[in-house]
Amino acid sequence: MSDMEALATRSRAASLSLQTASCKDRNAALSLIHKALLENADKIQQENKADIEAATKLAESGALSQQLVKRLGLSGSKFADMVHGVKDIEMMDDPVGKTTLATRLDDGLDLYKVSCPIGVVLIIFEARPEVVVNIAALALKSGNAVILKGGKEAAKSNAILTSIINDALSQSKTISKDAVLLVESRTAIDELLKLDRYIDLVIPRGSNALVRHVQGSTRIPVLGHADGICATYLDEKLDPEMAIRVLIDAKTSAPSACNSTETLLIHESHISTPFFGSLVKKLTEAVKTVPNVSAAIAHINSHGSHHTDAIISSSKENAESFMRSVDSADTFWNCSTRFADGFRFGFGAEIGVSTNKTHARGPVGLEGMLIYKFRLYGNGQCTQDYGAGKKSYVHEKLEVDEAKFQI
Amino acid sequence: MSDMEALATRSRAASLSLQTASCKDRNAALSLIHKALLENADKIQQENKADIEAATKLAESGALSQQLVKRLGLSGSKFADMVHGVKDIEMMDDPVGKTTLATRLDDGLDLYKVSCPIGVVLIIFEARPEVVVNIAALALKSGNAVILKGGKEAAKSNAILTSIINDALSQSKTISKDAVLLVESRTAIDELLKLDRYIDLVIPRGSNALVRHVQGSTRIPVLGHADGICATYLDEKLDPEMAIRVLIDAKTSAPSACNSTETLLIHESHISTPFFGSLVKKLTEAVKTVPNVSAAIAHINSHGSHHTDAIISSSKENAESFMRSVDSADTFWNCSTRFADGFRFGFGAEIGVSTNKTHARGPVGLEGMLIYKFRLYGNGQCTQDYGAGKKSYVHEKLEVDEAKFQI
Repeated sequence: MSDMEALATRSRAASLSLQTASCKDRNAALSLIHKALLENADKIQQENKADIEAATKLAESGALSQQLVKRLGLSGSKFADMVHGVKDIEMMDDPVGKTTLATRLDDGLDLYKVSCPIGVVLIIFEARPEVVVNIAALALKSGNAVILKGGKEAAKSNAILTSIINDALSQSKTISKDAVLLVESRTAIDELLKLDRYIDLVIPRGSNALVRHVQGSTRIPVLGHADGICATYLDEKLDPEMAIRVLIDAKTSAPSACNSTETLLIHESHISTPFFGSLVKKLTEAVKTVPNVSAAIAHINSHGSHHTDAIISSSKENAESFMRSVDSADTFWNCSTRFADGFRFGFGAEIGVSTNKTHARGPVGLEGMLIYKFRLYGNGQCTQDYGAGKKSYVHEKLEVDEAKFQI
Repeated sequence: MSDMEALATRSRAASLSLQTASCKDRNAALSLIHKALLENADKIQQENKADIEAATKLAESGALSQQLVKRLGLSGSKFADMVHGVKDIEMMDDPVGKTTLATRLDDGLDLYKVSCPIGVVLIIFEARPEVVVNIAALALKSGNAVILKGGKEAAKSNAILTSIINDALSQSKTISKDAVLLVESRTAIDELLKLDRYIDLVIPRGSNALVRHVQGSTRIPVLGHADGICATYLDEKLDPEMAIRVLIDAKTSAPSACNSTETLLIHESHISTPFFGSLVKKLTEAVKTVPNVSAAIAHINSHGSHHTDAIISSSKENAESFMRSVDSADTFWNCSTRFADGFRFGFGAEIGVSTNKTHARGPVGLEGMLIYKFRLYGNGQCTQDYGAGKKSYVHEKLEVDEAKFQI
């Protein structure tokens, strides 16, 4: 057995114990982690500082972007937010064991659809070390084991955070510390991607190139979180002041964010109007004119990334048509594309923004880490008792007691 | 552009038109198909007969199994069921445009999560030609375009059914006949699996080898419908008569079905009892004894296929532990594994039984063909207006009007 297979086996074993851990146990583990992070704040800052110093040197020589160095930081409010996030997740409702469907198939034969953890999730992410803590907390809350691979620039920060989490988990009686594992090398990922027997889902968060590489190298289902090519379309009739304000937010408030507007589509009637003039003064990049909302929709569906697209319009009809026809995870009317975010959407926690069209799409909260299983309670029924001239299924919808199977 | 890329482009165009087709339009298309199938019954029987004759010859020479020949048939009640299935699907509630979440992010900024079609779905299936009609009907109802690849033994039946569906769709004003396309060769599949730009989901229904081949050859998300290695565990305390009856149904009522029990686990206390004696007389295959329910769970989690597993027990505690801990799509108590089926579960229609742990698991009804998009309705909001010292999100749960966006 290779090292990576041994690691995946440990993760799988941890995931099986997590499947049966009660909400109380999972929350207790989060509480232990919260406490341990606060107690080890100095150690964390020390290791993070070492990462930043090394990265700063690389940035000075041009080998790394200044932006990336900035994203490595873990001090002040960033540290506080990270630690507080664990408490927030602890306080959330238990997403596991929720009944979403209950059907009486026949007398004494009742079917339930119940949410459960996916199992072992491999998450590949870049730069920001606080993702270790965010994802570990989300995974434990949802009963999943995770294998984490962070960016090498944050290696020391990722290692100390994982080690603190592991130490905290070793105080839990029910949850194995293997529930959160860290791997460091790229070759580890290539090996892990072959282990579809142990790993149930891989979530690559990063560039389109990373997501496509992962999709092309594994049998494991992939939930991709890639770049967006988001568009904002300025319709014929609109409030010019609103359009400019929203567009500036969408384009300039965080240009490298995945939900920032890249493409500006503008109704051709605005060309050579004062409105358009003041707009282009504020926005220097290329703009495409279109004759109508249908052309805007067609452009976005052909050239966009199916992430987030917005229409600024005074016409409800055009807005509805746009929101129905644009084949993207998020379609917005009269607001900034940058609202596409799990925290802004009120999900409390975010795994990322999915560019998939299956499983979970758009901003993904805890439910992206869950699937369901069916439970069927009988008293000796056989399928051969049913059919023409025999018993019939009743398929009676039962009232759903959402908490029936929660522990 | 290759032939297959041209075909995928047509499918994608049809899918975009389907995204905006009303429920009335989609149902009208189903009605046209229903009528056309009845009107062309003779033609269908003729082509099906040709398939069966060719397959029978192959079976006589041993090149094909008799079982497969049997599955090709499309006469009598099988034809009636197939045609009636289209009407059943037409009568079902519209699954598209259903609101499942509504949140006020702030005054005048409302978020909705709305079900929508996935887009273009590639479905690979074997033998039974009625799958063409089942899947086409499910796809149209759920607003998806499909590309179908059936078994070569049913080539003539598949072709005539697709041609009748296409002719019927050509009478629809809104839905393109390209919504249902058929490809014939294996090489077509290899080409299509590269076209992740156009195809959103691939559903291989068949052997484990087929599912693994597809998973290993594409970036497109795969919803696998593979063989099951289902287990039934006979616990220490149980009703012997019930155990034998359920087991016979589970093992022998359709031995080649994916939900048939392969593995019999039996509590060691039953060895050398009269109960066990009468059991093994009825069941000739190998049996594994285990010392307790935990060992049964561990065996199933290590050696099973995560499809369907059952426990026969008089102990509710053991049953609950089994159902929670067995990591399978379906976990049953005191009934046959063969209940794992979309029709028996009351889903009305079935895409198959998924062995995935993401997107859709176990018996999959229409909802397996759906995803969702987020719609955000604003009046000029910018993300930079929110944050410390600025506006706050309210995240107020709104009452959900499920039908708000249905057309």
